[in-house]
Amino acid sequence: MSKLRVHALSMSLDGYVAGANQTVDEPLGEGGERLHEWMFATRTWHEMTGQPGGSVGIDEQFAAQGFAGIGATIMGRNMFGPIRGPWTTPEGEAWRGWWGANPPYHHPVFVLTHHAHEPIEMEGGTTFHFVTDGIESALARARAVAGDQDIRLGGGAATVRAYLRAGLVDEMHLPVVPLLLGAGERVFDDLGDAVERSSSIEVTPGEGATHFVLTRTR
Amino acid sequence: MSKLRVHALSMSLDGYVAGANQTVDEPLGEGGERLHEWMFATRTWHEMTGQPGGSVGIDEQFAAQGFAGIGATIMGRNMFGPIRGPWTTPEGEAWRGWWGANPPYHHPVFVLTHHAHEPIEMEGGTTFHFVTDGIESALARARAVAGDQDIRLGGGAATVRAYLRAGLVDEMHLPVVPLLLGAGERVFDDLGDAVERSSSIEVTPGEGATHFVLTRTR
Repeated sequence: MSKLRVHALSMSLDGYVAGANQTVDEPLGEGGERLHEWMFATRTWHEMTGQPGGSVGIDEQFAAQGFAGIGATIMGRNMFGPIRGPWTTPEGEAWRGWWGANPPYHHPVFVLTHHAHEPIEMEGGTTFHFVTDGIESALARARAVAGDQDIRLGGGAATVRAYLRAGLVDEMHLPVVPLLLGAGERVFDDLGDAVERSSSIEVTPGEGATHFVLTRTR
Repeated sequence: MSKLRVHALSMSLDGYVAGANQTVDEPLGEGGERLHEWMFATRTWHEMTGQPGGSVGIDEQFAAQGFAGIGATIMGRNMFGPIRGPWTTPEGEAWRGWWGANPPYHHPVFVLTHHAHEPIEMEGGTTFHFVTDGIESALARARAVAGDQDIRLGGGAATVRAYLRAGLVDEMHLPVVPLLLGAGERVFDDLGDAVERSSSIEVTPGEGATHFVLTRTR
């Protein structure tokens, strides 16, 4: 069966996966972009953004894994865009994601929301589907289209926490970045017993981050 | 001037430096002992506890640093013992720390408490002094006796947080251990701007933990 995989959920040493005070201009919150500098340096990121070069070491290996063998993506609404509430405003009706006409997914993307929205078909094979009946429904729909491939679970933190609480995450790549944000959003919060205490955790030191990979063992 | 140094403040990947539900039998809380297994394996720990052998790799280097060049120790009352409230009960008057007649400090130890207590002189050069007028007073007293040497700041989490909030920690060794506790005490919590955003952070992968060393840069 397809695995549900989290990749490149970069975390500061003090435990934040996004900074405080997220806005349209700073969707990752104050200081949040610094969490991803290890990835911005990689060849995978350079190729995605049309830049030459990029690093080819350990960090690159982890960046590339996040795009290999993925047949569908699930994300929270706040990762899809800054619009809140119903989609019926002019801004809401016009919004087609952060990523331009040809988003870097190239497969179906399931956006969790409380407000129904018609699917949006983009160039390059990406279609945004809007799921209003919960995380398990989104996972079932993603499985139905992913075939033999896996499903990537994007952010934000609240979406990942919801899947962790439900025990549905098979693999989670968590790069720990040597900086302190002081405030922001945690992924490990109020998880209690839902944290898989029997997860096996592998550690690989990279150039710009230490890569922890959690694999569900039960 | 003497530095104030934290050593071996082991943290789980989900950010806890002690487990939940601390008791006399489990002073580190549920699962908290597992945070220190990397250290229990080292030669330094073996020597301190009268066992032969012990590892001599990266983890050992970090364990040993916590005892090198230290002239005084500061700790919170809960690290000194399980007694709460005034010391005037029979248990309170009899308590002389967790460590037996010859504690592994061999220098003055300043215990933060709200309740006055006469100093306790132990074998091997350790004397426990009880400080009732706050963290800055404890630091001043520790500096006065440490001479050229540094001061080690012990736990628990609340004590370290108090010194971090006050901007008084010069160096902090934080081993991150690849396990999840699910609940417990955080060291990075409600620190906000008190977190030294300009700390430089060095990362060294060890055998049983990834060692982060934070150095205050302003």
